[in-house]
Amino acid sequence: MITYNPKDWFTFIFRFHKADTLRKLAPLIFGISVYCWVIAFLELHVLKIPDNSHIKQITVMHTLLSFVISMLLVFRTNTAYDRWWEGRKQWGSLVNNSRNLAIKLHSMLGYEDAAHRSFFKKIIPMYASVLAHHLHAESTRLALDEQEHPELRELNTSQHLPNQVAKLIIQRVNKLYTEGKIKGDQLIILNNELQSFTDICGACERIKNTPIPYSYSVFLKKFIFFYVMTLPFSFALSLGYLAVPVVAFIFYVLASLEEIAEEIEDPFGGDENDLPMNKMAQNIKKHVVEILS
Amino acid sequence: MITYNPKDWFTFIFRFHKADTLRKLAPLIFGISVYCWVIAFLELHVLKIPDNSHIKQITVMHTLLSFVISMLLVFRTNTAYDRWWEGRKQWGSLVNNSRNLAIKLHSMLGYEDAAHRSFFKKIIPMYASVLAHHLHAESTRLALDEQEHPELRELNTSQHLPNQVAKLIIQRVNKLYTEGKIKGDQLIILNNELQSFTDICGACERIKNTPIPYSYSVFLKKFIFFYVMTLPFSFALSLGYLAVPVVAFIFYVLASLEEIAEEIEDPFGGDENDLPMNKMAQNIKKHVVEILS
Amino acid sequence: MITYNPKDWFTFIFRFHKADTLRKLAPLIFGISVYCWVIAFLELHVLKIPDNSHIKQITVMHTLLSFVISMLLVFRTNTAYDRWWEGRKQWGSLVNNSRNLAIKLHSMLGYEDAAHRSFFKKIIPMYASVLAHHLHAESTRLALDEQEHPELRELNTSQHLPNQVAKLIIQRVNKLYTEGKIKGDQLIILNNELQSFTDICGACERIKNTPIPYSYSVFLKKFIFFYVMTLPFSFALSLGYLAVPVVAFIFYVLASLEEIAEEIEDPFGGDENDLPMNKMAQNIKKHVVEILS
Amino acid sequence: MITYNPKDWFTFIFRFHKADTLRKLAPLIFGISVYCWVIAFLELHVLKIPDNSHIKQITVMHTLLSFVISMLLVFRTNTAYDRWWEGRKQWGSLVNNSRNLAIKLHSMLGYEDAAHRSFFKKIIPMYASVLAHHLHAESTRLALDEQEHPELRELNTSQHLPNQVAKLIIQRVNKLYTEGKIKGDQLIILNNELQSFTDICGACERIKNTPIPYSYSVFLKKFIFFYVMTLPFSFALSLGYLAVPVVAFIFYVLASLEEIAEEIEDPFGGDENDLPMNKMAQNIKKHVVEILS
Amino acid sequence: MITYNPKDWFTFIFRFHKADTLRKLAPLIFGISVYCWVIAFLELHVLKIPDNSHIKQITVMHTLLSFVISMLLVFRTNTAYDRWWEGRKQWGSLVNNSRNLAIKLHSMLGYEDAAHRSFFKKIIPMYASVLAHHLHAESTRLALDEQEHPELRELNTSQHLPNQVAKLIIQRVNKLYTEGKIKGDQLIILNNELQSFTDICGACERIKNTPIPYSYSVFLKKFIFFYVMTLPFSFALSLGYLAVPVVAFIFYVLASLEEIAEEIEDPFGGDENDLPMNKMAQNIKKHVVEILS
Repeated sequence: MITYNPKDWFTFIFRFHKADTLRKLAPLIFGISVYCWVIAFLELHVLKIPDNSHIKQITVMHTLLSFVISMLLVFRTNTAYDRWWEGRKQWGSLVNNSRNLAIKLHSMLGYEDAAHRSFFKKIIPMYASVLAHHLHAESTRLALDEQEHPELRELNTSQHLPNQVAKLIIQRVNKLYTEGKIKGDQLIILNNELQSFTDICGACERIKNTPIPYSYSVFLKKFIFFYVMTLPFSFALSLGYLAVPVVAFIFYVLASLEEIAEEIEDPFGGDENDLPMNKMAQNIKKHVVEILS
Repeated sequence: MITYNPKDWFTFIFRFHKADTLRKLAPLIFGISVYCWVIAFLELHVLKIPDNSHIKQITVMHTLLSFVISMLLVFRTNTAYDRWWEGRKQWGSLVNNSRNLAIKLHSMLGYEDAAHRSFFKKIIPMYASVLAHHLHAESTRLALDEQEHPELRELNTSQHLPNQVAKLIIQRVNKLYTEGKIKGDQLIILNNELQSFTDICGACERIKNTPIPYSYSVFLKKFIFFYVMTLPFSFALSLGYLAVPVVAFIFYVLASLEEIAEEIEDPFGGDENDLPMNKMAQNIKKHVVEILS
Repeated sequence: MITYNPKDWFTFIFRFHKADTLRKLAPLIFGISVYCWVIAFLELHVLKIPDNSHIKQITVMHTLLSFVISMLLVFRTNTAYDRWWEGRKQWGSLVNNSRNLAIKLHSMLGYEDAAHRSFFKKIIPMYASVLAHHLHAESTRLALDEQEHPELRELNTSQHLPNQVAKLIIQRVNKLYTEGKIKGDQLIILNNELQSFTDICGACERIKNTPIPYSYSVFLKKFIFFYVMTLPFSFALSLGYLAVPVVAFIFYVLASLEEIAEEIEDPFGGDENDLPMNKMAQNIKKHVVEILS
Repeated sequence: MITYNPKDWFTFIFRFHKADTLRKLAPLIFGISVYCWVIAFLELHVLKIPDNSHIKQITVMHTLLSFVISMLLVFRTNTAYDRWWEGRKQWGSLVNNSRNLAIKLHSMLGYEDAAHRSFFKKIIPMYASVLAHHLHAESTRLALDEQEHPELRELNTSQHLPNQVAKLIIQRVNKLYTEGKIKGDQLIILNNELQSFTDICGACERIKNTPIPYSYSVFLKKFIFFYVMTLPFSFALSLGYLAVPVVAFIFYVLASLEEIAEEIEDPFGGDENDLPMNKMAQNIKKHVVEILS
Repeated sequence: MITYNPKDWFTFIFRFHKADTLRKLAPLIFGISVYCWVIAFLELHVLKIPDNSHIKQITVMHTLLSFVISMLLVFRTNTAYDRWWEGRKQWGSLVNNSRNLAIKLHSMLGYEDAAHRSFFKKIIPMYASVLAHHLHAESTRLALDEQEHPELRELNTSQHLPNQVAKLIIQRVNKLYTEGKIKGDQLIILNNELQSFTDICGACERIKNTPIPYSYSVFLKKFIFFYVMTLPFSFALSLGYLAVPVVAFIFYVLASLEEIAEEIEDPFGGDENDLPMNKMAQNIKKHVVEILS
């Protein structure tokens, strides 16, 4: 994730950061420009299509559909953003629950109980780092795929690590209870935090392994493609060679929206915009150790 | 469900997957094209309607209504997507609760208690597979239909299987409690997971047996039909035979949105985009067995 | 509620179901058509307004406002749909809680305890049917009206039946507790389901007795009315008698949206699209009896 | 609040209720009409601006901005409606919790315990009426204002009444517990309802004392003002004196949306559309007394 | 935060408050006006571009993209508003939990227990003021930044103060429990409030340290910049020097939306529109002291 100052317009407009869609789309924008120039050249100098040709009227289609394509793309970006934000919320929740669990255990365990303290100092932050690793794995992304993946051997053989860590935490707390170190009322109080770990893991897995429906995604891409590919036909007649930058700019806007949506809909990848899970796991470690000391 | 790489534009644009709306709508798009060609032929060569005819102005209606139809369809798709995503969330919740219940029971039951362990190893994943089966059934879809369905005999006679499984789980846990194998505080801690099964089942049934209101659905279809059917009248005059691909493309866009919405609003069917419930039930089985071993 | 197959386009487009807005609005659409024909006749044949008249330019107003009216109506329908869906969710929640309560009581009560079993077999489904009846009553709709309603005598005198049933359930469970038939931990576990009945009833009452704000509703109707009434003035000049079907179709679209919103915003009435509360109460009865047997 | 029949179009369109925005905006609409007439008179008869003047092209600005202004206003209304509906939900929640608390206490307290019964019969509904009074007070609206308000003396000196009532309820329940009249499990069961009072009060205070951000509000008003004020310049040239009703109608639509938003964003005032808090407090009183008798 | 009367239009339109975007953007608007005048001068008097030039047709691009830019900006503002409102809700929740905790402790602690009372009188409001301070700190904003910040020394060394306060509260309550001053049932009842502090802190930190994705932000700024910069080319031909105020107004509207979004998306800064955290902390102090006395 990139932390930035949203009020610094100058940098935004004139620098080309690695995560800037303009930089990523540059080759495509160039390609579209050439395509558009070719169309314009053919229409204006080879075919010499007259100004009152029906072709010029194709604009009416683009106007009628401009609303659908705009809304679809804006909704697409917002749905992707919702997923990204939900992922961030789940990790925020992991932070909160790690802290709360540490604070509660700190007040329940005696100061002299070094063994349990050091166990929890290690195991609570371990959940976050194990989860970060789990979510980066390709096997997690493909967990719901019905096809076979012989190339990913660990998909079927390896254990589910976050579950194992959660098991260790809950087992230990239950042991504290059966040994009488914490009472039943205290066990009840710890329950929220204990079960939250697995809930958070499941929610992150859901975001990771369930992209938006295939039909939706494929339709959107076909729509953008045909929409932009047909723009030069009429624009070359009404705008001449000015159609080249105009079509390029329209393509930049539409493709950027789809590009941004693709990047942020899976907040657990390695993209520039993805959540800094390792940093968050470090912060959890720092705070849990601080609390339990 | 189809797992895919959202960044692979080339495949999206040039392949025609089974779940692609372009493939599904192909016959209809062809039909509309023929219809449009016939209208154009009649207007241009048979009736020879002059260019300044009032008919050409019908476009104004399509422009005025283009907002409504676009917004309606985009909202329709998004409402359908919300249902699909809610269904996915419910199943995610089932995954979480199955795992958490297994982890908790694992820590409460002694290692030697093989009988109970093997009972829960079987019954927890069974809920998921029974629910998957239940949601595929036609009788579930028609549960709220006020008409008689003599053709579906089991609608009124058969038992509600998920309820039976939930009953077995809760009964067994309660027995553990009355026999003193788990204490009251532990029973309270298990409660969330225990009651979640029936809540999840009910939520999935709700999505399954309650489509969007009939009036809304019928209005939308009539609207799309009339909108597209009247397009060629004015377009044939302003675009000539170019009206054929233009109208076909507009129809493709509008109908795709409705088509996608229809497919994903019931995430528990057998469509390509529907949730992989069997795969998820398998995963639950794998994890629960792993935890309770 | 009408259960239907959303993929059967043919039926949707060519049949005129009782709940179809086209059928309901037919007289109004006819009226608007006549009005529009009269305006067109006056402008074209009586006043003989020239083609370059300022009147033709009124279209600019309709274009500028087409976006507001579209968005307002689409949002209106979606807000109404949210209320309808919330009502459905509340009833889904009632189903879940009835089932869960029955399952839990089943596991807590001894098999031989026929008296309590038969009590709960009757009283749990009774809540649903009493609530259905309560929500159909005119007195519930007017519960927040500050005016006097002498014509509705029971408004002030009658008891609140759902409260009475909830009281009976909670009282009986509490008695089980004080008599030692269920323990404190079990009482705590039953609490969620016990208090949900009244929460659900309150939420349904809220939807029933609080329509969208009066000013909003009145503004929307005035806006549609003026918008459609002024359409023929300019359309008659640009479209001639074609203005009649065009205005009729625009009116059909706008009025349908408002009509649908009106129908579904109160999901507890007797409209075709309203929730099948009696059917749901029957289902609850069936399942609760099945569970407690 | 006004309870009405949403299907009675005739009344809506032809009557001018006190809460109708058309009535409230009438003087302003008249003012705008005069302004527009003056502009038209100047342009057409004094300055005699030719038809091909650049001024006529200003329309392009209004068209480009018509989307933004429409979306902003529709979103504004919907945000305001969300606040209104959230306020309603909080009061619905107060109704539910008052009922549930009464039902639970009824089942826990002995029939002969007249003292406690009559205490709760009074104090539970008292919360609702004290809250209604609290939310009407100007001091509640200004609770977060950082400026001094010497004219509102009670702002800093008076006690927070709802807190005092909540304190009395919780204190009494706690006393019942310490005296052994209710057991620990029953105390736990009552907790949800007990803490909900203060949560509801806080949520209502939040809606009351936090309007939408100042910058947003001021921008919207400046935008509407400039947008409408510049409309007549181009419209007078294309529409002649017809610009007067056209501009007036556009103003009516835009200003109505802002007007409605202003009214409903604070649901706890004394406007026609505001929540009938006193009626609701009465209903709570009626039901609580009915339950506890 | 500025508390204002939303119905006072006159003040809104004619005063220029410090938080008014018109005042903030004034220099930029002036700059754009000069730029636009220069373009107009060049096109009209230096290059003498003819009226039928292709340049005039660039407007078609602005029209096609006007939907996207409008929707993007309105959604942007609404997303920012959601963050602002969520921040407000979290602080409202802090108010509620502080009050509820104080009320509960008041009823559980004896009147004579001055020591504990005075401890909680100090420590509960202290959480709010420590949190306010924590959220103002630059180190909180950069907590997730993966870059090194040597200039912010306390980023890595200082303790997390809100955690320390939460620790003190929970520790003390736990001590009351182990000393038998409050019973287990009462401990369970206090749990919600106790764990809410850390949850609220985490949620506020999330809003503070996670701006909307960088790519989204940078794209939006580039888009607005290019959109406005290309407007004068075609407008100068169709509007002459009138293009200057028209472009300036369009820029004012678009930039205001982005400006407002930037301001309110971080509700915990020192901007005019930000939440009055210190005032809220004061109010919490006042009420907690009032309750516990």
